[in-house]
Amino acid sequence: MPLFRRFASFLPRFTPPPPRTSIVPRRFYYGNISDSKMAPQLQPFFKQVDDSSNDFIDRLRKAVAIPSISAQDENRPDVVRMGQFLADELTALGAEVEQRPLGKQPGKEHLELPPVVIARYGNDKNKKTILVYGHYDVQPALKEDGWATEPFELTIDEKDRMYGRGSTDDKGPVLGWLNVIDAHRKAGIEFPVNLLCCFEGMEEYGSEGLDDFIKAESKKYFKDTDAVCISDNYWLGTEKPCLTYGLRGCNYYSISISGPAQDLHSGVFGGSAHEPMTDLVNVLSKLVDPQGNILIPGLMDLVAPLTEEEKTLYPDISYTMDNLHESLGAETGIHATKERTLMARWRYPSLSIHGVEGAYSAPGAKTVIPAKVIGKFSIRTVPNMESEDVNKLVFDHIKAEFAKLNSKNTMDVWLQHDGKWWVASPKHWNFSAAGKAVQQVFGVEPDMTREGGSIPVTLTFEEATGKNVLLLPMGSSTDAAHSVNEKLDKRNYIEGTKLLGAYLHYVAEEPTV
Amino acid sequence: MPLFRRFASFLPRFTPPPPRTSIVPRRFYYGNISDSKMAPQLQPFFKQVDDSSNDFIDRLRKAVAIPSISAQDENRPDVVRMGQFLADELTALGAEVEQRPLGKQPGKEHLELPPVVIARYGNDKNKKTILVYGHYDVQPALKEDGWATEPFELTIDEKDRMYGRGSTDDKGPVLGWLNVIDAHRKAGIEFPVNLLCCFEGMEEYGSEGLDDFIKAESKKYFKDTDAVCISDNYWLGTEKPCLTYGLRGCNYYSISISGPAQDLHSGVFGGSAHEPMTDLVNVLSKLVDPQGNILIPGLMDLVAPLTEEEKTLYPDISYTMDNLHESLGAETGIHATKERTLMARWRYPSLSIHGVEGAYSAPGAKTVIPAKVIGKFSIRTVPNMESEDVNKLVFDHIKAEFAKLNSKNTMDVWLQHDGKWWVASPKHWNFSAAGKAVQQVFGVEPDMTREGGSIPVTLTFEEATGKNVLLLPMGSSTDAAHSVNEKLDKRNYIEGTKLLGAYLHYVAEEPTV
Repeated sequence: MPLFRRFASFLPRFTPPPPRTSIVPRRFYYGNISDSKMAPQLQPFFKQVDDSSNDFIDRLRKAVAIPSISAQDENRPDVVRMGQFLADELTALGAEVEQRPLGKQPGKEHLELPPVVIARYGNDKNKKTILVYGHYDVQPALKEDGWATEPFELTIDEKDRMYGRGSTDDKGPVLGWLNVIDAHRKAGIEFPVNLLCCFEGMEEYGSEGLDDFIKAESKKYFKDTDAVCISDNYWLGTEKPCLTYGLRGCNYYSISISGPAQDLHSGVFGGSAHEPMTDLVNVLSKLVDPQGNILIPGLMDLVAPLTEEEKTLYPDISYTMDNLHESLGAETGIHATKERTLMARWRYPSLSIHGVEGAYSAPGAKTVIPAKVIGKFSIRTVPNMESEDVNKLVFDHIKAEFAKLNSKNTMDVWLQHDGKWWVASPKHWNFSAAGKAVQQVFGVEPDMTREGGSIPVTLTFEEATGKNVLLLPMGSSTDAAHSVNEKLDKRNYIEGTKLLGAYLHYVAEEPTV
Repeated sequence: MPLFRRFASFLPRFTPPPPRTSIVPRRFYYGNISDSKMAPQLQPFFKQVDDSSNDFIDRLRKAVAIPSISAQDENRPDVVRMGQFLADELTALGAEVEQRPLGKQPGKEHLELPPVVIARYGNDKNKKTILVYGHYDVQPALKEDGWATEPFELTIDEKDRMYGRGSTDDKGPVLGWLNVIDAHRKAGIEFPVNLLCCFEGMEEYGSEGLDDFIKAESKKYFKDTDAVCISDNYWLGTEKPCLTYGLRGCNYYSISISGPAQDLHSGVFGGSAHEPMTDLVNVLSKLVDPQGNILIPGLMDLVAPLTEEEKTLYPDISYTMDNLHESLGAETGIHATKERTLMARWRYPSLSIHGVEGAYSAPGAKTVIPAKVIGKFSIRTVPNMESEDVNKLVFDHIKAEFAKLNSKNTMDVWLQHDGKWWVASPKHWNFSAAGKAVQQVFGVEPDMTREGGSIPVTLTFEEATGKNVLLLPMGSSTDAAHSVNEKLDKRNYIEGTKLLGAYLHYVAEEPTV
C-alpha cells in the first residue's frame, strides 16, 4: 500500500515554507519501478561496488583506525588527521577539495576547531547538484568501557558485522559517497550529478562553528545545490531501509549546585553542612517520572496534538516490540504497543538525565562530599515546541523546585545547547529518487520515518539552502552508535554504497517540479 | 569548670566492658595540677625539646622529603623507604625495631604491602606499657593541584607554618614519639614508661592487612599494653588542644540500577525505555532531605537519645560557627548554633551521597542514556546503631522506594564496607594523664571531643587489646590534611612533642584503677 497518501495530513502544524505543504500526490512515485520509463541502468555500477568491496572495507578500516574523538582535547590532532585522510582520498578520486578553518573552539581558545572538508565532484550545468553532508569525528571509546574488540581497530566477525568506533556513525556512510565516486571511475560510468561534499569534524561535540559556515557558504560554495542528502541515521529495524523526513530537536541543560569552597570530609561535615549532591538529586528527581512523563508544568501543552488521522499511520510501519527489545537488549520498554513506542520516539518529547559532573564517578568507595556538582539532562523536542518557551518552563520549574529545598547552597541552571526539531516534505523528488533507489537495491518500499534523535545540521541546511533535505540512512537499528561495540554490517555498507549511488542516478532522472 | 563530671551520664547506651562504666569521679583529676602530689617535674624535658627543636624539624624535613604515597603503585618503593627511615631512626634511639611484612596487596598481587614498623623502647615490669600508633604513608600530592610550595619539601613560612605533605598527617605526630625518646636520652631523664610503637604504611589506602596483624599480635608483641594512644587527628580549632574519646562509624552502600544491555542514544530511546538514571535519582532523593534529615524509616530510632545532661556539655566546647564557616569556606552550615552543629558531627548519624558510577561525569555534553548506574552513599553511624540493623533498614527502604517506581529496570543494593563507631571511657587514667599533660604544656583544660570521621584502627586496638584507647591530636583544624597546602604549625609540633612526653610522665603517675 502506498504510504504517501497519508503523509501530509499528519504533518505537524508548524509554519512551513510554501513548497513544503503543496498538494499531496495521489500515489507514491517509487511505488512501482516499472512505472518509470527513465529507470537508469545500474548493473555495471552495482557490479563494480561488489568487485571493490574489499577495497571499500579497507578504506573504512583506515578511517576507523584514526581515533578522531572531537570531545577529547588530546584527540584533536587525530580529528585533524582524519580530515586530512578524507581530503587526500577525495583528491585522489578527482574531486576539488578544500579544508576550511573554523577558528578557535569557543570556551577552549587553546584549541583550533577541526576544518570542514568541502569538495566538489563534477561541475556540469546540465546536471543536478546534490549536497551531501557527513561527519568524520566520533564519540569517545575505551576498550575498558566494555568493548569486545579494540574500538579503533575494525574487526569483522563471522556474521560480517564490522565492529569499530565510527563504523556506522558516521565514517561508513561518509566513505559510502567516496566509494560511489570510486566505483563510477573504476567502471567508467558517467557520474550522474554534480556532488558537493560537506564533511565536518565536530558533530559529536555540537557541530561547533558549522552553522555559520553553512549559512555563509549557502550563496557561495553551496549555491548550486538542488537538494541535500544526509546519511547519518539508521533504519528502524535491521531488514528494511527507511527514508527519514523528521527529527526531534534537543535542548541540553546543566544544573550546577555549589556550596563549600572545596570538597568536604563526610565524616567531619556530614550532617552539619548543606550538601550540593543531596540538593541535586532532589531537583533531578522532579524532572521526569520513571514512566517517562515529563514533570515540567506546561511543557506538554507545547506539543502538537495527535490527530485521529496521524494515528492511522503507525500500524503500517515495519517495526515490532521485538525490534525494540532487541535494540534495548532487554524488555525494559515503557509502552505496550509499537504504535505508542514509535509515537514516544518520533512525536512526543522526552527527558533524559545523563549524569553528574563533579561527584565521585569511579568504581570503589570514596567518602567525600563534593563541593560542586553539575547535573546534565536534555529534552528531545517536537513540533511545536519553541526553544525559548521550553527554556523558560525548564528554568522556572527548576528554580521553583530548588527554592522548595530551603538549601543555603547556590543553584544555577542554563541551556548548554539547543537544536530545533525538523520535519521535511517527503513528496519532493529528492525523496522519490531515494525511494526508487531503495526498491532497486533492496527490493522493498522503504518505511517513511521520523527519528527521535537530532541532527541539527539538517535544519540548518534546509534553512540556509532553501532546498529539500533527505535523510538516507545506511546503518541498521542494532549498530549501537555512541555505545560500546558500535558496528556496521558489511551488507549495510556495501548495499548502502549501492543505494547512495542509485539514489544519485534516480535524482538525475527525476523531473524537477 | 571541670568538664569531667558531665561525661559519664551522656555516654551512649552501648554495652560496655565493666571498667568503662564504673563510678564517675567527682571531679576531673587534671582540673587542678596543684592537687596532684605526684605531678612530675617536666622542666628538664621541656627545655631539651626546645633546645633540640631544630633537630626535630630536620627530622620532619627528611620524612616529608620521602613521597610515601600508599595509593600510587609507583610510589610503593618510597613507602618502603619511609618505613626504613623510621626503623633506622628508632634503632639509633635505642629501640628494638622490627619490620613486619603483611604479604601481597589484595587486588594488586604484584605489589608487596609496606611493612608494619613495630618497636619497643624499654622493658621494665615496674612501668606501664603504652602502645602508640601512627602511619608513615601519605595522601597523593602534586604541585599542580594548587600547592603554593613543593609538597615534598618542608617549607616554613614567616608565621612558622611548616608546609609539606604528611607534615600533620601523620609524620609530625609519629616523629613526635621519636622526639620524646630523643629528648629524654639527650637530657639524661629516665623514660617514664615502656613504649610500644605500631607504625603502618597503608593508612591512606584502607590500612590493608593491619587489622589481622593487630589481632594476631595482641597476645604477643602487644601483650603488655596497658593503654593505647593514637595521635592522628586534629584539634577542633587552632588554639585549644582536645582529647578525643569518640568516633562515628561509616556504612558505605552502593545502589545499582540497570536496564538496557548497553548505553542508549537518548534521541532514539528517550521516552520509550525505562532509564536507570531516572530511577536512581528518584531513589537517591528518598534517602536524605536537604536539611540533612535521614529519610530511612526507623533509622533514627537506633540512635541513643540526647539527654538533658548531655546537652549541657556542648556550650563549653571551644568552637564557634565562624570556625565552621572558615572550614567550609562558605556559610552553608545547616544548623544555627554551634551546639547543634557539634551534635550533628559527633552524636547524630548523617547520610551523604557521594556520586554516580556509570553515568556521564565529564565536562561538556553527552546525550547518552546510561545502561547501568551505581549510586554511592554512606551513613555515618553513632551509638547505638548496629551495622546489621542499619543495613536491614537501608535495604528495606530502598527496595520499597524502587518498587514504588514501577520500573522494569533491575535494582540491587549492597553494603560496600562498614566500620563501627567507637566511644571510649574518658574517665580512664589514660585520659586523665593526657588532660594533665595538656594543662601542663598549654595551660588550658582540653576540650573533650568526639569526631565525625572514622579511624577504624581505633576500634581494632580497643577490641584486640581490651585496653583504653585515647586519641591525642597534635595538629590543628587548619592543617588541611588530605588537601593542598597541608601544614603543621611549628608550635603544634614542638609543644606537641612536649605534650606526648608529658602525657607519658603523667601516665606513669596515674593510679591504675
